[in-house]
Amino acid sequence: MELVRAALAGDRRAVARLITRIENNCEDVQNELAELYPYAGRAYVIGVTGAPGAGKSTLVGQLAKAYRASQPKVGVVAVDATSPFSGGAILGDRIRMRDLAGDPGIFVRSMATRGNLGGLASTTAEVVKVLDAVGYDPIIVETVGTGQAEVDIARLAHTVLVVEAPNMGDEIQALKAGILEIADILVVNKCDCVGAERTSAALEMMLNLDRAGGSFHDMLCSSLALLTGPPQPATALAAGKAADADAGNRWRPRLIKTNALQGEGIPDLVQAIADHRQYLEASQELQRRDWVRVMHELEQTLYQALMKRLLDGIDPAHLTNLLARVVAREIDPYAAVRQLIAQCWS
Amino acid sequence: MELVRAALAGDRRAVARLITRIENNCEDVQNELAELYPYAGRAYVIGVTGAPGAGKSTLVGQLAKAYRASQPKVGVVAVDATSPFSGGAILGDRIRMRDLAGDPGIFVRSMATRGNLGGLASTTAEVVKVLDAVGYDPIIVETVGTGQAEVDIARLAHTVLVVEAPNMGDEIQALKAGILEIADILVVNKCDCVGAERTSAALEMMLNLDRAGGSFHDMLCSSLALLTGPPQPATALAAGKAADADAGNRWRPRLIKTNALQGEGIPDLVQAIADHRQYLEASQELQRRDWVRVMHELEQTLYQALMKRLLDGIDPAHLTNLLARVVAREIDPYAAVRQLIAQCWS
Repeated sequence: MELVRAALAGDRRAVARLITRIENNCEDVQNELAELYPYAGRAYVIGVTGAPGAGKSTLVGQLAKAYRASQPKVGVVAVDATSPFSGGAILGDRIRMRDLAGDPGIFVRSMATRGNLGGLASTTAEVVKVLDAVGYDPIIVETVGTGQAEVDIARLAHTVLVVEAPNMGDEIQALKAGILEIADILVVNKCDCVGAERTSAALEMMLNLDRAGGSFHDMLCSSLALLTGPPQPATALAAGKAADADAGNRWRPRLIKTNALQGEGIPDLVQAIADHRQYLEASQELQRRDWVRVMHELEQTLYQALMKRLLDGIDPAHLTNLLARVVAREIDPYAAVRQLIAQCWS
Repeated sequence: MELVRAALAGDRRAVARLITRIENNCEDVQNELAELYPYAGRAYVIGVTGAPGAGKSTLVGQLAKAYRASQPKVGVVAVDATSPFSGGAILGDRIRMRDLAGDPGIFVRSMATRGNLGGLASTTAEVVKVLDAVGYDPIIVETVGTGQAEVDIARLAHTVLVVEAPNMGDEIQALKAGILEIADILVVNKCDCVGAERTSAALEMMLNLDRAGGSFHDMLCSSLALLTGPPQPATALAAGKAADADAGNRWRPRLIKTNALQGEGIPDLVQAIADHRQYLEASQELQRRDWVRVMHELEQTLYQALMKRLLDGIDPAHLTNLLARVVAREIDPYAAVRQLIAQCWS
């Protein structure tokens, strides 16, 4: 717990070591995270996502610098370009992040964890929790917008920026519907480039389309929600006013043009983020998102704990053998699972 | 078990009822699936994915008809356009599928399940298992290519077709890298349209790029793989020859041009699928994929069983209260999970 005390006292190296322990999935890191938990929950988390080449890293650098004007400690977590398959890392990102390295008030961390029981998403959430607990605020999380990563960032961040650049194929907007759906703020970067106006207009049009009803955050609910019902901060967290962020009162995603390389549009972007934050707070949507996130985190933690029990309690050779029998259809998967449960959880 | 017997005897209505029971997540449907399990594992599963508007449904219809020339029973499972968020259904798909409805040798099912404990992916896998057990072969699974759905289809299918159409934004290929990565066969549909040659050339170029090392199927491995190690059908399933589908021997994704509306290119596509199947069998990659899929299925089933125990064993009000305390940071999530485990699995 010495590491936790040092981190809370402001020791950057202790923070870095804690994060490494999370990445390595160390045995007792949960104790340290538990120790830090009461201190977390204060930082505002900004998610930045979008296609490769849209200029996310440069934008994140500019945002971090802008926030440093008023904030003593700003955190940046760059989650590597992980296609669900190849898991490749865009090294360019890391290099660009070095621009920030001179400022001791900015903590930058690139994540490249794999093979973690909880996956990159839960590792990222834990790293954010550490930075949050030791006083970094805001924390900017950058991730490439592909599939699951979008869902993860939407779950983790308070405000999600989706970064687009001109000439990346306006015609394919249908494909992008998914990523637009998570955008609280849409950033058209490289706004000095040819085609920027056309891209902005096309995206603005999409934003004007009426969105499918219901907060997409409801969709992030986990199995536990089957038990507790949908998130109801109004009843469970705060008495009184219903958490009804619907209809006329709903946030309409904002489109902001930037040229991150030159720093243009950054003040507008910071203002839009502040506006979104104010909306979240006023509409109780902030509490609602907290509720969804905690429910998901509990479920993930529970799952990891249960899987760990399996890993500890079962002979690998036995499991391999059981798998082979299921593959050979000598035993059905349900019977195999009953057998595993009987062995580990009876 | 009467339903199972009727389904095995070829009663289409019994098959439909079994599938409905899966969709509704009925209490004892696992017994029926267990009963069917020994009969499954014979069908070849073809996954068809791609952006909305690429003409997937028409292509699936043509493929189903083509296979019916030689096969007595062909199955089609259309998984609804489920963005991870809005979960909307493209009704057009269902309508087009009706073209197939006249042929009693083709079984078509559209899936629109939500709120299932195991999610749409595991429901789809179970439906495929039912069709497989009662003799449908091949089984074509159609899904919109978004995020998690891509991973799911790659896990479920033996051969994955990614369907593209011209003029959907060649410039944005980088974004599509993920979906190309799962393609065993790339289909450029609507090949009569202006721009088809250009799209084909661009995609062909991408296919020629050297792919990141390692079968992406290794990436589909689940937590259980931490225990058993990577899939090793060579040691676990078949003795002798190592399952080394690497290097010079690896499958190079094929590009096929079709005009599904006119039936053009369908014989070429059927041939390409046959070639891929032959490759999978010769390289033992088929066994390897089975291994990965079964491992994942076991893990999912285990998870569902464990969550069911939680749902059965815990008072919802207690869980809601526990969640509220975690949100309020009165208790950390790890302690909360320990408490849940003590209550349900001690």
